[in-house]
Amino acid sequence: MLTLCYASGSCSLASYLALEHSGAVYQTRKVDLAKGEQRSPDYLNINPKGRVPALITDRGILTETPAILAYIAQSFPAARLAPIDDPWQFAQVQSFNSYLCSTVHVNHAHRYRGARWSDDPAAHESMRRKVPETMKACFDQIEREMFKGPFVLGEQYSICDMYLFTITNWLEGDEVDVNWFPKVAAMRRWMLANPAVQKVLQAQ
Amino acid sequence: MLTLCYASGSCSLASYLALEHSGAVYQTRKVDLAKGEQRSPDYLNINPKGRVPALITDRGILTETPAILAYIAQSFPAARLAPIDDPWQFAQVQSFNSYLCSTVHVNHAHRYRGARWSDDPAAHESMRRKVPETMKACFDQIEREMFKGPFVLGEQYSICDMYLFTITNWLEGDEVDVNWFPKVAAMRRWMLANPAVQKVLQAQ
Repeated sequence: MLTLCYASGSCSLASYLALEHSGAVYQTRKVDLAKGEQRSPDYLNINPKGRVPALITDRGILTETPAILAYIAQSFPAARLAPIDDPWQFAQVQSFNSYLCSTVHVNHAHRYRGARWSDDPAAHESMRRKVPETMKACFDQIEREMFKGPFVLGEQYSICDMYLFTITNWLEGDEVDVNWFPKVAAMRRWMLANPAVQKVLQAQ
Repeated sequence: MLTLCYASGSCSLASYLALEHSGAVYQTRKVDLAKGEQRSPDYLNINPKGRVPALITDRGILTETPAILAYIAQSFPAARLAPIDDPWQFAQVQSFNSYLCSTVHVNHAHRYRGARWSDDPAAHESMRRKVPETMKACFDQIEREMFKGPFVLGEQYSICDMYLFTITNWLEGDEVDVNWFPKVAAMRRWMLANPAVQKVLQAQ
């Protein structure tokens, strides 16, 4: 049995969506970030980094969204969540998800998590002011250079869409309109109409 | 034929090391970051993100360090650069490399790249001041919770060591002493004594 530790509104949604689409038998455990539960001794035993998501498996605990997504895709190949049989195609998946975790998510984090990188409240405020610009630049890059359409990888709906969808949920708060990026916006509408996606959104 | 676009002192060293260890026939192309060559039209044609590394292959161009490392490991299995046959073990590789790209490299980048996240020079200075603290915290985490020893994954020297070694090269500039982390420091010494590693360090 797999157990996903997740928090509402966080990037753990991507892993939740992948699990739901995978056909896996799984359960979830909600971590309340507002109450600081991610820093409780109990949760730090699960993930010493104090972050979500964490996937509890029979073989141990797995953290970091790109790793969890690829692991779910490889563990449930019948669900076809990623092109896992061709190293080149799989590398494209990895490349896209690495960009999301190391650049796009990081840019977004400068809105609320400036204290990670500076102790000065004025600096936090200046970081917050730049988020709309950096997030727009990322989505320009994605729309223009990376998104093949109708899904990220082309015809195949994949873990890349689930991760990108998760981040599009943050755009309104970042003062960026997803409709500026027509291909991304169309994928988002498709996912919002998907019953499995709706089930996860309502559950979390 | 593979061609790696790299820059001295950057995270592209990890991919360079993996290529050298892989037994691949490859060539390199140096990108001069000090001259802004990464933003030249010629280079933006290769990588529209304007960053290194980029790996030029017969099938197209691949970017993002974790993706390039996994692709090299999968393409040259005889070199045993990662446990690619077991999805769980491979997920540990991915998790480690994701942490390096999305947290450790990002923390380091706040020393010189503050302009990515703020337009205020005072904010850049406050970010710079916090880098020793955040980098020490990351390496505490790695040493205590993630590094099995004698290599990252245990007995097998892997792409995770090559990536971590690359980042240890930045620690002195970040006012962190690698010797505070005995397991990491021992791996670093082992790599510095490795002829393939020396060859790459001298070539770049």
